[in-house]
Amino acid sequence: MIRSIFYLAPDGKVPQEISKDDIGSLLATGKGLLWVDIEDATNEDAQFLTDIFHFHPLAAADCVSKNIHPPKIDHFENYLFIIVHGINYNIESDVVETTELGVFLGKNYVVTSHDVPLRSVVSTLERVHKNGQPMRRGADMFAHDIIDALVDNIMPTIDELDEKFSNIECEVVEHPRKETLNSILQLKRSILALNRVMSPQRGIVNNLARGDYSLIGKKAQIYYSNIYDHLVRIETLTQGLRDLADSALATYLSSVSNRMNEVMKVLTIFASIFIPLTFIAGIYGMNFANMPELHWQYGYFIVWGIIILVGASLVFFFKRRKWL
Amino acid sequence: MIRSIFYLAPDGKVPQEISKDDIGSLLATGKGLLWVDIEDATNEDAQFLTDIFHFHPLAAADCVSKNIHPPKIDHFENYLFIIVHGINYNIESDVVETTELGVFLGKNYVVTSHDVPLRSVVSTLERVHKNGQPMRRGADMFAHDIIDALVDNIMPTIDELDEKFSNIECEVVEHPRKETLNSILQLKRSILALNRVMSPQRGIVNNLARGDYSLIGKKAQIYYSNIYDHLVRIETLTQGLRDLADSALATYLSSVSNRMNEVMKVLTIFASIFIPLTFIAGIYGMNFANMPELHWQYGYFIVWGIIILVGASLVFFFKRRKWL
Amino acid sequence: MIRSIFYLAPDGKVPQEISKDDIGSLLATGKGLLWVDIEDATNEDAQFLTDIFHFHPLAAADCVSKNIHPPKIDHFENYLFIIVHGINYNIESDVVETTELGVFLGKNYVVTSHDVPLRSVVSTLERVHKNGQPMRRGADMFAHDIIDALVDNIMPTIDELDEKFSNIECEVVEHPRKETLNSILQLKRSILALNRVMSPQRGIVNNLARGDYSLIGKKAQIYYSNIYDHLVRIETLTQGLRDLADSALATYLSSVSNRMNEVMKVLTIFASIFIPLTFIAGIYGMNFANMPELHWQYGYFIVWGIIILVGASLVFFFKRRKWL
Amino acid sequence: MIRSIFYLAPDGKVPQEISKDDIGSLLATGKGLLWVDIEDATNEDAQFLTDIFHFHPLAAADCVSKNIHPPKIDHFENYLFIIVHGINYNIESDVVETTELGVFLGKNYVVTSHDVPLRSVVSTLERVHKNGQPMRRGADMFAHDIIDALVDNIMPTIDELDEKFSNIECEVVEHPRKETLNSILQLKRSILALNRVMSPQRGIVNNLARGDYSLIGKKAQIYYSNIYDHLVRIETLTQGLRDLADSALATYLSSVSNRMNEVMKVLTIFASIFIPLTFIAGIYGMNFANMPELHWQYGYFIVWGIIILVGASLVFFFKRRKWL
Amino acid sequence: MIRSIFYLAPDGKVPQEISKDDIGSLLATGKGLLWVDIEDATNEDAQFLTDIFHFHPLAAADCVSKNIHPPKIDHFENYLFIIVHGINYNIESDVVETTELGVFLGKNYVVTSHDVPLRSVVSTLERVHKNGQPMRRGADMFAHDIIDALVDNIMPTIDELDEKFSNIECEVVEHPRKETLNSILQLKRSILALNRVMSPQRGIVNNLARGDYSLIGKKAQIYYSNIYDHLVRIETLTQGLRDLADSALATYLSSVSNRMNEVMKVLTIFASIFIPLTFIAGIYGMNFANMPELHWQYGYFIVWGIIILVGASLVFFFKRRKWL
Repeated sequence: MIRSIFYLAPDGKVPQEISKDDIGSLLATGKGLLWVDIEDATNEDAQFLTDIFHFHPLAAADCVSKNIHPPKIDHFENYLFIIVHGINYNIESDVVETTELGVFLGKNYVVTSHDVPLRSVVSTLERVHKNGQPMRRGADMFAHDIIDALVDNIMPTIDELDEKFSNIECEVVEHPRKETLNSILQLKRSILALNRVMSPQRGIVNNLARGDYSLIGKKAQIYYSNIYDHLVRIETLTQGLRDLADSALATYLSSVSNRMNEVMKVLTIFASIFIPLTFIAGIYGMNFANMPELHWQYGYFIVWGIIILVGASLVFFFKRRKWL
Repeated sequence: MIRSIFYLAPDGKVPQEISKDDIGSLLATGKGLLWVDIEDATNEDAQFLTDIFHFHPLAAADCVSKNIHPPKIDHFENYLFIIVHGINYNIESDVVETTELGVFLGKNYVVTSHDVPLRSVVSTLERVHKNGQPMRRGADMFAHDIIDALVDNIMPTIDELDEKFSNIECEVVEHPRKETLNSILQLKRSILALNRVMSPQRGIVNNLARGDYSLIGKKAQIYYSNIYDHLVRIETLTQGLRDLADSALATYLSSVSNRMNEVMKVLTIFASIFIPLTFIAGIYGMNFANMPELHWQYGYFIVWGIIILVGASLVFFFKRRKWL
Repeated sequence: MIRSIFYLAPDGKVPQEISKDDIGSLLATGKGLLWVDIEDATNEDAQFLTDIFHFHPLAAADCVSKNIHPPKIDHFENYLFIIVHGINYNIESDVVETTELGVFLGKNYVVTSHDVPLRSVVSTLERVHKNGQPMRRGADMFAHDIIDALVDNIMPTIDELDEKFSNIECEVVEHPRKETLNSILQLKRSILALNRVMSPQRGIVNNLARGDYSLIGKKAQIYYSNIYDHLVRIETLTQGLRDLADSALATYLSSVSNRMNEVMKVLTIFASIFIPLTFIAGIYGMNFANMPELHWQYGYFIVWGIIILVGASLVFFFKRRKWL
Repeated sequence: MIRSIFYLAPDGKVPQEISKDDIGSLLATGKGLLWVDIEDATNEDAQFLTDIFHFHPLAAADCVSKNIHPPKIDHFENYLFIIVHGINYNIESDVVETTELGVFLGKNYVVTSHDVPLRSVVSTLERVHKNGQPMRRGADMFAHDIIDALVDNIMPTIDELDEKFSNIECEVVEHPRKETLNSILQLKRSILALNRVMSPQRGIVNNLARGDYSLIGKKAQIYYSNIYDHLVRIETLTQGLRDLADSALATYLSSVSNRMNEVMKVLTIFASIFIPLTFIAGIYGMNFANMPELHWQYGYFIVWGIIILVGASLVFFFKRRKWL
Repeated sequence: MIRSIFYLAPDGKVPQEISKDDIGSLLATGKGLLWVDIEDATNEDAQFLTDIFHFHPLAAADCVSKNIHPPKIDHFENYLFIIVHGINYNIESDVVETTELGVFLGKNYVVTSHDVPLRSVVSTLERVHKNGQPMRRGADMFAHDIIDALVDNIMPTIDELDEKFSNIECEVVEHPRKETLNSILQLKRSILALNRVMSPQRGIVNNLARGDYSLIGKKAQIYYSNIYDHLVRIETLTQGLRDLADSALATYLSSVSNRMNEVMKVLTIFASIFIPLTFIAGIYGMNFANMPELHWQYGYFIVWGIIILVGASLVFFFKRRKWL
């Protein structure tokens, strides 16, 4: 579904919202800058893209399809089809998911296509509405603005993951629960998922920055290489988070076996102290006719003495082993 | 065994089923498009391929051999021999297996060879039968159609693996059994097996898409690069599944040791509470002639009081440790 | 020790066994094909190779030395020195070992050198004896025949490892023993050792197939690339076996801790049921003068009732926890 | 905030501190060497850099931004913008952190920018103050001096980590505590963090040493390749530390389960010796009217004999198993 | 400290020991072969190297510095500075350490510098003393001789590590002790340390063998590629040792938990057999006035019967579970 169409005339200062029917003639002039934003593309939209813009049917089909498309650049004769990924802020899930932005970049047009509303597109739209500033520096810089906003929007998610880890680290040391393991594994999966997308994305932005494509001007390349730096930073941070996750996992597993150790110690102390004592009591519970000790005046108290002595030495033994 | 032979005349609209004997003369014309589909190739078929098509004996032997052949392209003077893998849907097994499709791609012919019936070949056959549409765009596009269908048929298997993991994840958290571990390891092996095939396959399709071979036209290359994108997606998904498998394994192992912890706690609580109490009872079961407490009026009740006190404080102690 | 010397005259059909002294003059003609097979080379043999064939002393020394030489190609001015590895079938060991075959490949000669008798050399010898067929296609194809047989002889070992794993997988699930772990680790080591040799071997055969050396003709290259395919298959299979080994290891370790769990459960059930009951019996074993229950008519039977009640509820408790 | 501005006239021996306003005219001469050091750059400083030095706004923004910027070189028309990392000695933390140094290297100027005070910059400043020696060998060598000092300052931190590991290794073997695990994981994280920065840094210094940039003279390249060697050494050392960390972790985990073993043994010995003895005592505590042994003259002493015998043989049994 | 200076005149057969002062003039002739061996270089030696040989100060400083320098080649205008590593046989340590040999290779001189006495240098010295043979084949071959001896001296250490592993493997299966783990981890660290040095060393020797440097003649290249083969063998062997170490570690950890299992079983058997029996005895130790069984003629013997029956069935139960 086409959400908005803007056109900045070659000598214009403010982009105008135009109707779908005017696109064809404006494109033909080869001047100015046209921006079409499509959300949740339908087959009809794909038809429109192939008819009016003469995009390759496969590229148009990628926009419609709800499958995951890893980041890529398809280089066609006079336009680029770029797929980049940003964070999907539209779902409620503990595991981070990414969503795609398809960008057709031509000499005088930019077509963006996404499955869900994207913060970066919305904010660009607002700025275009306000004074049109983002559209005034040409198609390559305009595409840069949108992709840059998309990549910048990844940082808050990384900060959030970082904060979650701080909480988990405390929890894991102080009172690890069954759910803690789950949280750690979920965070790790989020990070791996992020990493899996960011790594090819970095490669793609590097291609854009390196001047492989004539549609990206010299000046814009420096800006694309700035996005590249951001992606390197994101990768460095996610690798740091991965180390954190691994160390949290090791701490969790070790604290589980520490607790087991604790439980065992308590059992051992109780059993090892009282079982011998019970045995002593058992001895004098026997009913033999001839048991001299039973008839001693202070036999009972002597046995108490022995019991206390044995008990105390066992306590001392465990103290020395630092189990108490 | 040759399953079907179709020929689309250069000016024809619908491919005709022809007999084995006509192949030689039609090939010699160098025009139209010939498709020969061989299933479970015999030595006789190999002979036929070397005699009529002049294929290299080693390539023909690869079709006959029941060994596993990893994906590859052999570039001969005027034809390509491509081996790609798809899911083997003909076996009943918990571990995913792949099966091979050998494709000889010449200027005006495509020969396909496979050990077991393949869904992609069957569906292409149906479409050829119906209106011949797939054969009308040349040999390179026809080979693309078959390989594309083969790759698309991998997705349902991945979806199935994904679903199995959802089931396992529940099981592993709620009541992990001995069999759970087995399922996890089997799924992991399926994924690794898939990965091992998909990774070289991606390389091979990339070669086809990059224009390394003159038999693949410019137009077809874009379509091959679309298969490449699908394979990248499949790899991304299988890597995600691998992370899931690793995290399921960690959860399983951790839940096993959690259960051990639980068992230990129950033992410790029972033993640590009742062993001291039994000791107290043992004391007053002794038969000393001189045990003053035994003759106190309320001695028995006082001991009950002590027993209840000791028991209660032990329960309190375990409560505070959160073991109860 | 030179085992056999064959010479196929340029116009001959059947190779002749010739004596060591004739080699020099036949080599000088630059025609026909000479094959010298050396087993367990001595310094004298090395001297012979450098004197008559003018091989580099270092290459001749490699043949004599009993050290392990990883696969390699040394490219000398008019001959190649190739080291490839095959399975050593001459040792009785649970761990697979490889052994080397050194091949000197010249324009009109092939010299093979190996430390132990090799099946592939023996079978080639038989075929040469019978009708000389392998020697009729030139030096490059003759060397191919021997290396191909060497690589093909690796497959039975892999099949054997595969079978051993099937046995281990059953054992590990049903009754894992101390020796099971050892078998798994031994198989894993066999696979890793195989992998370590096959991986560079693949690189070397690829070089031979790619046409890097003028001594390997166009026609022979296709055959060498067939060996390459076999080595790729072997690598794929060994990687699959490695996954099997890892999963067998995980199963073993998990089944060990499962058994521990089982042991703990039995202990816990026995102790937790009988310790409280013993306590009850202990209470009424006390000798207080004033214990009203002891004088009740049915006191004893009431206590039995309590004991049965407590025992039954503990059994019920353990049943609900699925420990029984 | 600009901390210091030095200018060495082309024929001067000692650099002069100059004011901010003179920079423009001195730069225009294209002679001598100017050094501007900025700490904790503000937007105003960025403005100054773009206005006077005509640096790219993105590079100037990198200096202001408090985000992490991985090491990189941005190659602009007539200057390089290099980001390298050193140890941040200004924080009190158990985990090592790095901090950035941004270096703008032009033909006749060096601008350094850092967020926190850096030892390497301070020591260079002192040497410039003293006799100006570092500035006399040109801009490329001056930048080398600062970067070299930065890299050299990494070594003390590695030595410190090494020492910490020595302490931990003792602790882990003798009396591992809960905190020990934490220390190991923290050290490992420090090492990984260091590694993550050093690896790209090495790549960047390699580029500088290889002569990719005309601003680095032939003579200076050798000195940059010396920094490269230092970074290789640092990487080798950190990899060694990583192995140490892994082995400390394995020791810790194994010593935890060894302690558990110990606890279990104590429990088993006590319980297994005294439970059977208590049973024997229990037998003769029974009140049957007809128990012949009870009336034997030496029954009691015989039972003691049995008890001592059983106890001794159990002790012997545990001795033989080496549990005692 | 300069240990020895030899000079082989262009027409000489036997190298002469010359004094330090003659070096300058002999070098200037550009003929013959000069060898200077420096051990534990001082600043004075570095000065000498820069003054007389005109070596780059950084290279001379590398010789003096006691830091670790990873293997490398520095290519200067008319000499190479090579750092290679050999085993340090001068320390008493359980962990293998490497030590450096710096080689300056010029057209008519070789300067070797090392921190500790090296066996390879000593043996070369002896051979030079005896008949000068090593110096007669030119500077490149002479440097080869020293490096070759250095690399060959690595093998005994690997054999030693191999033997240590054989001992450990026995120990780990039969009676693993606390120290066993330590030995395994130490061996692993030795191997990793060795690997870390050998891997870049292999790269460097490959460069020398490949003909990247004009100072290494065609003939010498073959000999350098022989060193390369040795390094490949060493790497293959260390990887095999690493697999051994990993499998020893797995066996150790598994045997620790096997022993725990054993301990648990003993405890469980004792406790589970005697606790129920003690309960039975406890029942008839109760003092109820009305306990019919106590007055039966054979009550006591019936109870013994029950006890034996219960005990026997429990023994049978444990036998069936294979715990006994």
